[in-house]
This record gives sequence, C-alpha cells and structure tokens, in this order.
Amino acid sequence: MRLINKELKSMKWTLIATWKMAAEGMRLAEANLRKSGSADQALETVITAVEKDPRFHSVGYSGLPNQVGVVQLDGGYMNGDTLSIGAVGCVEKVASAFKLARHCADQQFNNFLVGEGAAQFAVQSGMEMMELLTLEAQMIYEQRRAEPKPLSSYKGHDTVGVCCLDGQGTLAAGTSTSGLFMKKPGRVGDSPVCGSGFYADSEIGAAAATGVGEEIMKGCLSYEAVRRLQQGQDPQRAASSLVAEFTRKLIRKRGRAEAISLICVDKEGRWGVGTNIKFAFVVSDQDHPARVYVAEPDQDGCTIRAWNDTDQDVD
Amino acid sequence: MRLINKELKSMKWTLIATWKMAAEGMRLAEANLRKSGSADQALETVITAVEKDPRFHSVGYSGLPNQVGVVQLDGGYMNGDTLSIGAVGCVEKVASAFKLARHCADQQFNNFLVGEGAAQFAVQSGMEMMELLTLEAQMIYEQRRAEPKPLSSYKGHDTVGVCCLDGQGTLAAGTSTSGLFMKKPGRVGDSPVCGSGFYADSEIGAAAATGVGEEIMKGCLSYEAVRRLQQGQDPQRAASSLVAEFTRKLIRKRGRAEAISLICVDKEGRWGVGTNIKFAFVVSDQDHPARVYVAEPDQDGCTIRAWNDTDQDVD
Repeated sequence: MRLINKELKSMKWTLIATWKMAAEGMRLAEANLRKSGSADQALETVITAVEKDPRFHSVGYSGLPNQVGVVQLDGGYMNGDTLSIGAVGCVEKVASAFKLARHCADQQFNNFLVGEGAAQFAVQSGMEMMELLTLEAQMIYEQRRAEPKPLSSYKGHDTVGVCCLDGQGTLAAGTSTSGLFMKKPGRVGDSPVCGSGFYADSEIGAAAATGVGEEIMKGCLSYEAVRRLQQGQDPQRAASSLVAEFTRKLIRKRGRAEAISLICVDKEGRWGVGTNIKFAFVVSDQDHPARVYVAEPDQDGCTIRAWNDTDQDVD
Repeated sequence: MRLINKELKSMKWTLIATWKMAAEGMRLAEANLRKSGSADQALETVITAVEKDPRFHSVGYSGLPNQVGVVQLDGGYMNGDTLSIGAVGCVEKVASAFKLARHCADQQFNNFLVGEGAAQFAVQSGMEMMELLTLEAQMIYEQRRAEPKPLSSYKGHDTVGVCCLDGQGTLAAGTSTSGLFMKKPGRVGDSPVCGSGFYADSEIGAAAATGVGEEIMKGCLSYEAVRRLQQGQDPQRAASSLVAEFTRKLIRKRGRAEAISLICVDKEGRWGVGTNIKFAFVVSDQDHPARVYVAEPDQDGCTIRAWNDTDQDVD
C-alpha cells in the first residue's frame, strides 16, 4: 500500500543528458525514475554507464590521455535540495570520477579534491580503481603525437553532463569527463567547477555544460542558466540565448569563441539546451522514453530536431 | 609629454583587499596606481607581499599545512578586459600561487592547473620554487595534531583577495591562500574557482571572496556579486545583502552556515563588502591612502567602521 502511494506521488520527472552516448544509460535510469527513483540514482546510472563503456573516448575508462599519455579525469555533482557539492579534478585510475565526486559531497569539508589526494581518498573510500588507458585510446594518442601539426588543436572534450528532476521534486546535476585530449598534466576543466560545469537548486532548476571548459568557466554558464530560470525565463529560451549572447561576448572581447553547449531543466520539468556547435542530447520524462535530439545554432539561439541517420557526424 | 598625458588620463582608481595583512602591499601598489600602473600589477604587488611574509599563516610562505603536514596552495586571477582566467589548485613549493595563476591565464588552454602538473608547469616557466613550510607553521601543526579534539574544526582560511579598478578602466581580481588548516591532501577551495573565489568584467565590476570555500562555491558568490552590480545595485548594498541572503539560505537548507566574506568594486570605482563574521579589509583610491576597516554583520547586511586597536582579534 505504501509502495503504491509512493508510486502515485512520483508523477513528474525529467532527465536530460549531453551527447548521444548517454542514451543507453538513460533507458536504465528511466525505469528507475518510474519507480520513484531519486535524481541522484538517475545521475549515477546514466554517468557510470558512459564511464565504463570503452567506445566513448572522452569519459572514464578508455578516455583519451593528456600530453604525457596519462588519463586524468574530472567529475562534479550537486544536489539541489541541500546545495551539497562534490567534485574531483585530475584524478587518475578511478573507475568512476562521478561516484567519487558524489562521495566528496557527503563530507562536511573537502568537497573538491584533486590529483594524488583525490586518488588516495578514492582508495580509502573503497572506490573501484583501474587502469583507464585502453589500447585503442593509446593508439589514438600515438597517432596524434606522430602528426606534424602542433598539439594546440584540442579535440575530444565531450563531457557527459546530466540534469534530473525526480518525482519527489529534487533537482540534481552531475558531470564526468577525461577532459581535453592532449591537455597539459594537471589541467582541470569546467566539469568539477561548481557554477561552470554544473549547478542545481531544487527551488529553481539545474544545468550542466560540455565543450571547452576554459570558455565555459569565463561565464559561469551553469549558474547563470539557473539564475535565468529563477527570473522565470523559459528553459529553452534561457539556455539558447545565454550561449548565443556569451559566444558573441567572447568574440567581441577575445576575437573568437570555442565550443560551448549547455543543458538545463527547471523545477516544473521543462528543459532547454543552448549551443554554438552541432550538439546531440538525450531527453526523457514521465510521458516520453529517452529520445536523441540534435541542436544547431542559428541567429537567435538554436534549432532542435530529432536525431536521424544523417547525423552520424555528431556523437 | 606622452607620460604627462598618460598620467592625466589615469585619474580614478580603486583598490580593495581582504584582511588587514594586505595593508603593507596596498601602500606599495598605490604608489604605482598613481603613476598609471595597471590593475594586474596592483594585484601582484599586494598579493606577493602577503605571500612572502612569514607572519601570515594562511597564504604562501609559512602557510599552515594540510593533514599530512604539507603546504598546498590555491590561487586565482581574472582580467576583466579579456575575461582571461588563470588558476592553480593544490600546488606545492611555488613561491607565488598568484603569479603562477596569472601565468596560466596567458595560455590559450590549460588555464586551470592542479597538483603535480601545476608544479611542473611552474618549474618549466621559471617560477621561483621554495620550501613553504616554516618552523613556526610546523610547530602550530604539531601542536594541533597533539590536541585530543577531532580535526574537523578548521581554522586559518584567510585568503588574500584583491579587486582593482585601474586608471585605464580595467578591472581585475586575484586570490592566494594555503587553504583550510588541516585540510585533506588534494583539497581545493574557492580561491582558484572562477565565479566563486573571484570574478571580473571591466564592463561591470570585480569581486573576490574569503572564508570557507565549500560554502562560497555553493553560491558562486563572486559571480553573483558582479551580476548584481550589472543590475545597477550599489556595491555595498549588493555585497552585504548577497552574503546575508546566502547565509540565511544555507541555514534554511543545511541548518548552519560557515564563514563567508566578500569584497567588490564596480566600474565607477565604488566598493562594497559583505560578511557573516567580523571581517577586516583595506581600501584605497585616488583620493585616499590605504585604510583598514572592520565590517560586522547585522540584521540587514553589515556595519563598517575604521579599524582601531580594540580590533586585535581580527587579522
């Protein structure tokens, strides 16, 4: 009887994630959200599914390494009920940067850990540790090193970012990435940076970002997206105008702007995306199973349509 | 002739820094700002003066160590003309975390470096390296370790944060700290986190924070302060109401709030502070030499008065 009541209570939920690679994990998370699963659980289901999949070279196991051939991971987490944050940067040999970040959020202090200290904390906490560099990732690295062009053209910065409103009204956001391919050792992007890579406040909304962290951090874009939701803006309008405006600002101030994409969801479960590149994302809610969409920037913001087979160029 | 013109042009400037320890460096920076010195130079003068002074145990040389007796520094920098950011977290043996952060801002990518990678970059860049743990800091550490009470009561989190509007209209913000005394190895606070520890936009204003980073990051307080300046709020009103409101929000959501203090300056050179503890800060501008003030929280925000000899309890 209690179970039935609980199921009836959890009516409305929304789950949104960056890039097509999130689709499989989304389907697992959906089943759980239907049974009153929490936003925290949904984030972990989606993100760990991407982290452990060797096909994806920008997150977790088989992530592409840094300049010296070492895989260093970033991850972040925020719970919108408590504003608790957890984050890890530049951590090696941890199977799930997201799970470690989430565990950091349970501590009173020391919520953001990096490098060797973060790895030590993972071991002390009984987190799964493993070699993350796969043979395939190493081959991509060796190939890139052999190319004559300089190492400054970075690629492979596709963070998995997830925002969830669960049936209990909790909003949460999470991220995980191996960061820029060929980054300098010790480089940290926006993914573990609260307000840039992620932000969540259950009274308002949640947001997460993917793209070149160095640009996203200049605008605190996840925080700014949630702030615009607080002003009552429609999520799609908030996200798409934010990315378009900030891209113009970067071009005006710096002459150029790198890739930026953003997802958000508000406390009503309405979602939105903004992007300055071709960008795929996945959404599901209580009425719709996980579906992949493609957003492309236009004059005013971006245009969204369902993903189809001609979109093989975007992951 | 060119020099005279340049001097005439640079009329209005404002420099504001956290804690009384910044006062000596402020006086050096003032002289330079009067001679058309840049905001970047002013930040470096104030911050490096604190970093190298062994009397101050919360910043740079003689900073208090982490749980395992090692000094790990955080620092951040943002230039409001270009939105360039530079940051270092958990870096060991670097004489100036701020100078390293500022150097990171000159790179196209890899603006935020942590741990071993950050130290390697410092060495490659010819930064001054040194042992940061002094005998006195080590004695404080040993004493603390011998105490029976648990290590969870953190103290000594007094970041030097500086905001400057220079005579050319450039706004910049910078930070440097050894972080929470007895922090976990690898812990990073708000000081290198853009939007939390610092933010600057020359079209609007600049802000920097000090206190418990884990709290400051939950609210992206430096970014939010600058955003309120953009709405046309008076800086004193913006900073004091922000800290008061966010403190109440933390208490409502979490049952408690740790120490938070914030400084800001707008593009007109008007400044403001907000705090939820007794907090000393230093201000100077084109008409006033550096002066130390004390802010204390009240119902509505905070009250500010000149520092006097009865304020020996606040650094």
